[in-house]
Amino acid sequence: MLDLIAPLVVPNETKMLLLSLDGLAGLPHPDTGRTELETARLPHLDRLAAEGACGLLRHVAPGITPGSGPGHLGLFGYDPLRYRVGRGVLEALGIEFDLRAGDVAARGNFCTVDDAGRITDRRAGRISTDLCRELTARLQGIRLPGVELFVEPVKEHRFALVLRGRDLSGRLSETDPQAQGQPPLPVRPLEPAAGPTADLVNRFLGEARRLLRDATPANMVLLRGFDRLPALPRFTDTMRLRAGAIAAYPMYRGLARLVGMEVLKTGNGFADEVATLEEHWHDYDFFFVHYKDTDKAGEDGDFGGKVAALERFDGFVPRLRDLRPDVLIVTGDHASPSILAGHGWQPVPVVIWSRYAGADPVTAFSERACAGGTLGLLPAHHLMPLVMANALRLTKFGA
Amino acid sequence: MLDLIAPLVVPNETKMLLLSLDGLAGLPHPDTGRTELETARLPHLDRLAAEGACGLLRHVAPGITPGSGPGHLGLFGYDPLRYRVGRGVLEALGIEFDLRAGDVAARGNFCTVDDAGRITDRRAGRISTDLCRELTARLQGIRLPGVELFVEPVKEHRFALVLRGRDLSGRLSETDPQAQGQPPLPVRPLEPAAGPTADLVNRFLGEARRLLRDATPANMVLLRGFDRLPALPRFTDTMRLRAGAIAAYPMYRGLARLVGMEVLKTGNGFADEVATLEEHWHDYDFFFVHYKDTDKAGEDGDFGGKVAALERFDGFVPRLRDLRPDVLIVTGDHASPSILAGHGWQPVPVVIWSRYAGADPVTAFSERACAGGTLGLLPAHHLMPLVMANALRLTKFGA
Repeated sequence: MLDLIAPLVVPNETKMLLLSLDGLAGLPHPDTGRTELETARLPHLDRLAAEGACGLLRHVAPGITPGSGPGHLGLFGYDPLRYRVGRGVLEALGIEFDLRAGDVAARGNFCTVDDAGRITDRRAGRISTDLCRELTARLQGIRLPGVELFVEPVKEHRFALVLRGRDLSGRLSETDPQAQGQPPLPVRPLEPAAGPTADLVNRFLGEARRLLRDATPANMVLLRGFDRLPALPRFTDTMRLRAGAIAAYPMYRGLARLVGMEVLKTGNGFADEVATLEEHWHDYDFFFVHYKDTDKAGEDGDFGGKVAALERFDGFVPRLRDLRPDVLIVTGDHASPSILAGHGWQPVPVVIWSRYAGADPVTAFSERACAGGTLGLLPAHHLMPLVMANALRLTKFGA
Repeated sequence: MLDLIAPLVVPNETKMLLLSLDGLAGLPHPDTGRTELETARLPHLDRLAAEGACGLLRHVAPGITPGSGPGHLGLFGYDPLRYRVGRGVLEALGIEFDLRAGDVAARGNFCTVDDAGRITDRRAGRISTDLCRELTARLQGIRLPGVELFVEPVKEHRFALVLRGRDLSGRLSETDPQAQGQPPLPVRPLEPAAGPTADLVNRFLGEARRLLRDATPANMVLLRGFDRLPALPRFTDTMRLRAGAIAAYPMYRGLARLVGMEVLKTGNGFADEVATLEEHWHDYDFFFVHYKDTDKAGEDGDFGGKVAALERFDGFVPRLRDLRPDVLIVTGDHASPSILAGHGWQPVPVVIWSRYAGADPVTAFSERACAGGTLGLLPAHHLMPLVMANALRLTKFGA
């Protein structure tokens, strides 16, 4: 889709506002048969659905539960099957590390090993974040030939490892044997071209072992989720616009920065995010605004909490509409049904509101209602072309 | 889809009638909330929708506004992303030039240049079509090595240029600098293989300059929209049928001829087209009949005019049904919403009527009503396999 629309894009003065409600979609409560969206009182979202075009977004493929990375990349127009973002990269994005194309990232754990080198605690007793910082500072002294090395503390026993250099590969096996009583595994290349990168990482592991020898209880490291950052076409280049991202959580800021959006400084809650949006309304053509509370409640299995989070969001809708966006989109990055207490594979309601969104029969914003909308069931990465069309920013295909 | 169905096709005596209402789909009027289709009184189309299977066609991809070329190729079963038809080819089709696979076509403008060769009028004051004919006759005298050259008058300052030969490429830059006060640009190859074609076109430009030196005001040409005609599988071969096309406008006759349909001589209005259809009903298995008025009114931003055009069409439906087609399809090549006053990306209603079209809940022919149909939202090039199936002209896939 990006290749298709890039040559059709025309600049324009229109404004687009993409509201991503994390983990938006849900499932019926066993007692009532109604989902969180169907249970909540959402007068403003229902009105938006009645005025706009509705449908359901599928983020990866039928039955596939998206992580936050693929979920948001889809919303931004990237086919998540083509542009893969693995766990190591997400760990680095989660601390807003400035990843660059070609970087290889991994998730690191400090662990405890005995004198024979066998793992006795895969998380080193969940050491404090302070100790994590101190120990990563030691590891930052390691030098590897031909690459730049970054060792960044995350939280407790977790850290992020990033290698920057030429021709690195992320196709590496993990060192965590996923069991106590065994030594950490050496890294093996999973493709021939990954040999040199595997050698570098094994050299890092040897050095880490030496530098941590006297540390208690975190005297060794485990590395997982190696991944190479794919070269992503910049969202702002493809769409020829200025894009501002507003998110209280670092992971989503990281994802937005990854595709080239400008990340705006904001506070801790959604009220702060809305204030930031109002303040910068004239500075950008496109805004991505992230709402976390729906996912938090869903992941906690808190049906009532998710209903309340939806109703709180609904209360902000009039303020958002007062900004008079030309295109307003409400959707989410994946389902987080309360009865699953985690991410789900279910498709996610979407409403596109614009003057040109089209006649559409849907009058309520819910999973069931949006299933009857004119947008149909569409891959998430087909959303942005529709958004751009509604903003009158795409010319005709074929004269 | 063509590759899939071709081996399944079986000949049969059934008759199919595809009615393409140009620019059919619309958008709600801001005052009433009802689209053109929802505003018009369409008793016969509504009845057809109630009896047949309904859905929405998407011609290229979500958010992509189709031109008339891709729009109709989709209806004929060709994926418009695979079979691209550019502006030069459409210009040649618009005058019913008999384009062949491998031909390279461009749109030409006569223009005015000053003594230093700088453009002073990109359209040469919109010279008369008579003068255009006279000047293209001069250019027809140009000879280029190894290729056949066609220079055909279109209208006023416009003409079509076609090169026919081996290994030509349409990946060429345009010569129109899109601004006055600059000289026409030479043609550059946009891929290495286009070098020889670029040389030929530049040679043509040099000769044109020389031959037009004394012509006033049209003393030079500009070339745009170079395009190579892709090799299209013939519709009549793939579907194993005799296909007749009836269209008052040359562009649509050209598109039908492009895929191998036989173009029937007809008059200027839709009444003439229907009379032609009745006259030839026994000569073909498949008819493509084009209705232009809906698009004309939509492009003019004339909501009432489009409503009237729909009602006029509706009045013809009983006569069309009296022919007793086995499969009757009503749809369009793209949206032309009056409030956009141009083509739109919105999906287009479709009804397939046959004895076997299937139980379907839709009872009115409109964008909103068809969104709830059993055909769903389907790519336009998936329509023909459904049409062929309803005509009992496809055998089982897999024994």
